[in-house]
Amino acid sequence: MRVPVYLCLLHYPIVNRQGAIVTTAVTNLDLHDIARSSRTFGLKGYFVVTPIEEQHRLLGRILSHWHKPQSQEYHPKRFEALSLIRLTHDFEGVKQEILRKHGELPEVVLTDARRVRESVSYSQLRHELETSGRTRPLVIVFGTGWGVSDTFYPEVHRILAPVYGPEGDQESGGYNHLSVRAAAAIILDRLFGDRE
Amino acid sequence: MRVPVYLCLLHYPIVNRQGAIVTTAVTNLDLHDIARSSRTFGLKGYFVVTPIEEQHRLLGRILSHWHKPQSQEYHPKRFEALSLIRLTHDFEGVKQEILRKHGELPEVVLTDARRVRESVSYSQLRHELETSGRTRPLVIVFGTGWGVSDTFYPEVHRILAPVYGPEGDQESGGYNHLSVRAAAAIILDRLFGDRE
Repeated sequence: MRVPVYLCLLHYPIVNRQGAIVTTAVTNLDLHDIARSSRTFGLKGYFVVTPIEEQHRLLGRILSHWHKPQSQEYHPKRFEALSLIRLTHDFEGVKQEILRKHGELPEVVLTDARRVRESVSYSQLRHELETSGRTRPLVIVFGTGWGVSDTFYPEVHRILAPVYGPEGDQESGGYNHLSVRAAAAIILDRLFGDRE
Repeated sequence: MRVPVYLCLLHYPIVNRQGAIVTTAVTNLDLHDIARSSRTFGLKGYFVVTPIEEQHRLLGRILSHWHKPQSQEYHPKRFEALSLIRLTHDFEGVKQEILRKHGELPEVVLTDARRVRESVSYSQLRHELETSGRTRPLVIVFGTGWGVSDTFYPEVHRILAPVYGPEGDQESGGYNHLSVRAAAAIILDRLFGDRE
């Protein structure tokens, strides 16, 4: 992969069931599962974004355990995956770290379970990443809770089409309430998985 | 989908890190995530297999909570997904329930992170399910821990190819240590997801 690709999991600004903007809690399994998927599909880093200081302390403790030599020896695969994780307080921190590393701000692609008119398809984005001479970094953003608030939209360049099963969207009887761990795995596979 | 498809998560016979046969513990998130993925991709049921009586009691308690009218009202999407779950003590129970329902024993397709010589590809199985006149039920089996013990192999008709990212298998520098939740999501998407 020529293009450096990052994943970003937002815990703010998120909407809750009632539509209000909230901060969600970071969960241990989101760290592990999405780090393993990010590593599998060749991503350069996995940003976990939360403004809450207490969560940074907690995550710092969890990650420092996994960064110990004993973890590297006993759980080398976990160690390798979790070393992709970067904690930031806000999305500005994500952009600045990518800018520092690659000399260029990333393109921001949002994933959303709702259908948005002008979404980019997986095959289109995959084709573009595989064949164009593009080097601009890409960050794929996932929300938690009931999804990313539209106050985040000014940051977004493109939106990926929702993931559907054989029954299609909700109006046609389909179900699109995947966990963020499952959605992230599927979306990375659609963009970067092997095609036999 | 004409063919009735089931997912089965085995907690026995599983190998541990040392290669010994063990029973793994059922985790709450495996229930939720894999049920939601199973529902999304139109599966007929999700079998959770464990011989441990205490785990059946625990799971029965968790599921009875989710089967309450309040859950249906307040979390209709969770309710809908979790209603796919069936608990059995062994794989024979899975086969018998499918036989009772469809009058025919299922074809058993195992997923495995290791490469096996004669595996079936996703496109091959997908094509077969989409185009043939087949009606025989299919059960896709996932392991926990370090994978399904080869003592289970006499039950297996075919094995699916492992899921790889762009770096390929471990010998070529790739990483295939996805969580079972991520692997199940990807495999169901490869077989039944929409293709834009």
